[in-house]
Amino acid sequence: MDLVAPRSARLRHLTRRGRELLGSEEAILGGAMTWVSERQLVAAISNAGGFGVLACGSMSPDLLSAEIEATRQRTDRPFGVNLIVMHPELDALIERCVEQGVGHVVFAGGLPTKDQVAHAKRGGAKVLTFAPAAAVAKRLIRIGVDGLIIEGAEAGGHIGPVSTSVLAQEVLPVVREVPVFVAGGIGHGEAIAAYLQMGAAGCQLGTRFACAAESVAHPRFKEALIRAQARDAQPTVQVDPAFKVIPVRALLNKGTQRFTAMQVETIRRFRAGELGFEEAALAIEHFWAGALRRAVVDGDVENGSLMAGQSVGMVKSVQPVAEILADLLAQAALALERLDLAS
Amino acid sequence: MDLVAPRSARLRHLTRRGRELLGSEEAILGGAMTWVSERQLVAAISNAGGFGVLACGSMSPDLLSAEIEATRQRTDRPFGVNLIVMHPELDALIERCVEQGVGHVVFAGGLPTKDQVAHAKRGGAKVLTFAPAAAVAKRLIRIGVDGLIIEGAEAGGHIGPVSTSVLAQEVLPVVREVPVFVAGGIGHGEAIAAYLQMGAAGCQLGTRFACAAESVAHPRFKEALIRAQARDAQPTVQVDPAFKVIPVRALLNKGTQRFTAMQVETIRRFRAGELGFEEAALAIEHFWAGALRRAVVDGDVENGSLMAGQSVGMVKSVQPVAEILADLLAQAALALERLDLAS
Repeated sequence: MDLVAPRSARLRHLTRRGRELLGSEEAILGGAMTWVSERQLVAAISNAGGFGVLACGSMSPDLLSAEIEATRQRTDRPFGVNLIVMHPELDALIERCVEQGVGHVVFAGGLPTKDQVAHAKRGGAKVLTFAPAAAVAKRLIRIGVDGLIIEGAEAGGHIGPVSTSVLAQEVLPVVREVPVFVAGGIGHGEAIAAYLQMGAAGCQLGTRFACAAESVAHPRFKEALIRAQARDAQPTVQVDPAFKVIPVRALLNKGTQRFTAMQVETIRRFRAGELGFEEAALAIEHFWAGALRRAVVDGDVENGSLMAGQSVGMVKSVQPVAEILADLLAQAALALERLDLAS
Repeated sequence: MDLVAPRSARLRHLTRRGRELLGSEEAILGGAMTWVSERQLVAAISNAGGFGVLACGSMSPDLLSAEIEATRQRTDRPFGVNLIVMHPELDALIERCVEQGVGHVVFAGGLPTKDQVAHAKRGGAKVLTFAPAAAVAKRLIRIGVDGLIIEGAEAGGHIGPVSTSVLAQEVLPVVREVPVFVAGGIGHGEAIAAYLQMGAAGCQLGTRFACAAESVAHPRFKEALIRAQARDAQPTVQVDPAFKVIPVRALLNKGTQRFTAMQVETIRRFRAGELGFEEAALAIEHFWAGALRRAVVDGDVENGSLMAGQSVGMVKSVQPVAEILADLLAQAALALERLDLAS
């Protein structure tokens, strides 16, 4: 048994559909992280045999085009482009992907329409979307998506309400029509093996890649993640059902504390008639504007947003992407082989 | 392949250590749920081949003794007693377990001391505890515990900050000295198979058993759980770091809304100098007193606490315990056998 690179036959078998859809050597996607998943990291993941995904975030169509081009200069392997459905210029962004012959479009932050899926596929791209529940997954398959990602609340950044383990139990046994990738809280190959065994076609990881050597994130950002334990990565708190806040999982720091205090104070002012509803809701929504950039780009780990998944406790050092991938795959293969020995 | 009761050799092999520690036919524990895990449900789980665990909760030593006795009248199979470490009469409760020859003591709601573990074992009992992290697990093993339970934040009732999937990745690969059982968010045998593959010796489920035919929970409580989806089971919100609230996962209802509003209002009054710190903290802490009883016993599903794990979406009907166990084991065995076919 080769412990260095045991790409076991079982691992290859279980990831076959995932690898075929992505066109990559391994069925491991890089999670699209704003400010982090840019040309360098995305190319590094794809060059290492994984599947990098560019985070478009709030980029303009021109910026996205340039980023796609720059990524192409760094890798000739397949990579994807993640588009946020609520982006005001979504159609123009899709059109750029079509024009530039992007191979894979990943819709995030909401559900795309049938027309948007068809538009993205016009240039031959495969379309992946996030599915928050089995019923939604079935609907997405009917409108033409080629693959699904189920991302649990363990993930970093903006999160849904249901954990990865529960989504896996609810979706994997009943959604077999297209490859399903599992994301959220994954930091060790044992979990990849387990989700593959449950029917996943592959997995997506963000936090571990954010700390990769090739990641442009500020060294202080990476240090903060390496120091952190799982329990430090907590979702922001919504203090009042009247003020809808999409929870964001990030490391607790002064910024997260101030966010909670600011919500309480804003709601107090609204109740006292000092602020209108719209004004109060907007103040809460805009609090984090720029906070992720402050942490990732400027390295302000006190006041910035240290978005990270619960897998952060499994990030132990800055490693090259190729080493991270090799570790994960060796652990997954070993876990699957251990099972052989047990039978 | 027998789909009705495929107790596959692999399932038997992977659960061997768990079954030996528990002395039960299957390595499935019933989670200890206050007001729910009493003589009837506990005996039903043990009689069906699982391992029932009595929830002592805030019972007096006399009440606990009577409950142990009543359970014994209903089953001659092994079952455990769950003791809350912060119970003011913990030593007396342990002593009752020793006197009555209880086979398994499960410490919960905190960590027992070395003396408490030794005390519990004086009558020959095996001791299990909950471990919130790998380092704590190692320390507990050194003070003599015989088995560990890792319970993720997907669970119902009082929860920790880390999800089941992450705890499993962090603890299972490095803690092999004693059997480790996984709990939190489990509702399908696929997940049991996955955790066993990762090194677990068995699993613990609460929510599915709460809705069992043999559960004394009020029919309206069971109906509420059966109607609910995973996303409906949310942790209570802590609105201010100054007022420590252990989060409780329960179905959203009027009670949970009022709890959040009450916290905001209490903190406003504290900040305005209308309430002292102690007074405010106590008001928040006591809000839920009796709320679980109101829901479980009285069937008040509007204002009571509908404690439930995220597995609640996988609870589809009221089933006898034996049927729940058979379903879970068949699913787990099938998942493990599917892997054989894949290799």
